[in-house]
Amino acid sequence: MNRQIVLRQRPRGAIDESTTELVVRAEPTCGPDEALIKVAMLSIDPTIRTWMNDAPGYLPPIEIGAPVRSTGAGVVVASNSTRYQVGDVVVGMTNWQEWVIANEEHRFSVIPRDIGLDLATVLNVLGVTGLTAYFGLLDVGRFQAGDVVVVSAAAGATGSAVGQIARARGAARVIGVAGGPRKCDEAVSWYGFDSCLDHREPDLEGRLRAASPNGVDLYFDNVGGAVLDAALASIAMHGRVVLCGAISQYNESGRPRGVANTPMLIMRRASMSGFIVLDFAARFGEAQAVLVAMVRDGTLRHREHLINGLERAPEALNLLFAGANHGKTLVVVDEGIALA
Amino acid sequence: MNRQIVLRQRPRGAIDESTTELVVRAEPTCGPDEALIKVAMLSIDPTIRTWMNDAPGYLPPIEIGAPVRSTGAGVVVASNSTRYQVGDVVVGMTNWQEWVIANEEHRFSVIPRDIGLDLATVLNVLGVTGLTAYFGLLDVGRFQAGDVVVVSAAAGATGSAVGQIARARGAARVIGVAGGPRKCDEAVSWYGFDSCLDHREPDLEGRLRAASPNGVDLYFDNVGGAVLDAALASIAMHGRVVLCGAISQYNESGRPRGVANTPMLIMRRASMSGFIVLDFAARFGEAQAVLVAMVRDGTLRHREHLINGLERAPEALNLLFAGANHGKTLVVVDEGIALA
Repeated sequence: MNRQIVLRQRPRGAIDESTTELVVRAEPTCGPDEALIKVAMLSIDPTIRTWMNDAPGYLPPIEIGAPVRSTGAGVVVASNSTRYQVGDVVVGMTNWQEWVIANEEHRFSVIPRDIGLDLATVLNVLGVTGLTAYFGLLDVGRFQAGDVVVVSAAAGATGSAVGQIARARGAARVIGVAGGPRKCDEAVSWYGFDSCLDHREPDLEGRLRAASPNGVDLYFDNVGGAVLDAALASIAMHGRVVLCGAISQYNESGRPRGVANTPMLIMRRASMSGFIVLDFAARFGEAQAVLVAMVRDGTLRHREHLINGLERAPEALNLLFAGANHGKTLVVVDEGIALA
Repeated sequence: MNRQIVLRQRPRGAIDESTTELVVRAEPTCGPDEALIKVAMLSIDPTIRTWMNDAPGYLPPIEIGAPVRSTGAGVVVASNSTRYQVGDVVVGMTNWQEWVIANEEHRFSVIPRDIGLDLATVLNVLGVTGLTAYFGLLDVGRFQAGDVVVVSAAAGATGSAVGQIARARGAARVIGVAGGPRKCDEAVSWYGFDSCLDHREPDLEGRLRAASPNGVDLYFDNVGGAVLDAALASIAMHGRVVLCGAISQYNESGRPRGVANTPMLIMRRASMSGFIVLDFAARFGEAQAVLVAMVRDGTLRHREHLINGLERAPEALNLLFAGANHGKTLVVVDEGIALA
């Protein structure tokens, strides 16, 4: 059988018990040119929440009754496809379920067995998280050595990778913004940020200005809202704002608090660009080679927050919005599947 | 004597009688390598209001007691400089006063006598207004033939020029946004916009979506605030937002209504860039040649709103914020000076 967590109704605000339901369906069978994948682990990302809305997005809304869309990893247990061999560990759109079919339209990437990383690390650093950090900082943000870089959600999976890549590439200063003293401490002592500001304390705008007296050359935004506004107030001449995510807004059911400091983009001839990492798919290999090397030589630290059981995926997603996760949030669907 | 309008105190909100005062000072004298200019006309631009604040900007705040900073035109009446001959008509930072000195640090551009345009047209189309439209649309906005273009303050001096340049260069559709039916009518019937939406009517966001069903490729923003928000909601894939001005916010004394739809920049891989036309100074000649040709062949219509008397410059500035001007607002300081 195939246990799935499907979208029952579109949430307003945070998801709750009425949003999804666990259903049991027949295990899919492997047709011509297809492979059957047993799902091992799910990547829990804030963007999943946006796919639950009936609103224009970069992918269609998840249909009511369909399993919640999600990337994940698994192992090939049967294959009629030349792309996949039984035993291959693969990464792709598994969705929130125990079994998934790979075919020509729905492809997965095969992870080399000798990669020397465990599955959780692969889903974190080589998955959308690490790739988002890499392309967002270097391509969208046009990072240059000597930049003063500010990163929000600095102790989070994406933010911590952004900060470390910036440092490794010669940033003048890497300043984090995070929620609460524990995360700020971790950003500095574990991930090597030069400093980290707690956005829950008053006057973030003033503290950010003091921390970057010559302005912020590159702000990597994972949160939107008030933190984005504070960063805009300190943007440097020709500064760049990379909009990666807006987790502070995804659960808003009304009109969110807007960003008031957009005129600073005029004063400072600055720009603000959004992106979706899927647009860089043709270059994932290039990025993954760099990221694996950084993990191996210790310049890219990472941390995963594992939650056991498919049925806990909705709870895992809500952890992100509460800021209660500690590292990349992953749901273990089948703990018997391993890479290394 | 030199009558000046000086900044008396920094305004909160709209300027009023306490903001500026008329003072009479000695007429400046023309030292070595200097020229004395009699001011003919002032260009009244929303950005002047931003220079009155004691806030970081692209130029230093106007000092208390100094004449209000402004571009304008005048005629050279005495010259010890090889740059200027008596009788030259010049354009530059005249400030709000009757006389100004040109020197090596404070330079003016000499307008060719045979340009075949009157002084008001020169200050409008060849001044910051036309230049802002040209570089904002073509360089900052990376306009391409086939773009669906939306322009706010469409019947205004800058907006009307943006719309006409876009149309002349092959926009698929040029949609204006303006305040009130009279301006909307003018945008369409006089300036040739394909349509124009009144932002004072309800649901601008929905009407803009209906007017651009495939999205807005390029939004040229002169106003900020709610109109910017509505345009972001309709931004096309890889769309570009050009931030030229934010007149809806310059008179705000508190925190302005923010822009809530910035996450659309993520969904649509779009970007938003601010600019200051002064950064393009090295290329003003290129733009002016194009703009003069467009005026001559009738593809660039323009309208000036003349107000007589230096003492009425503050009133003229407030007209812009009330939306009560009709075309490029200019203050005539000396009506005896003419180009053609």
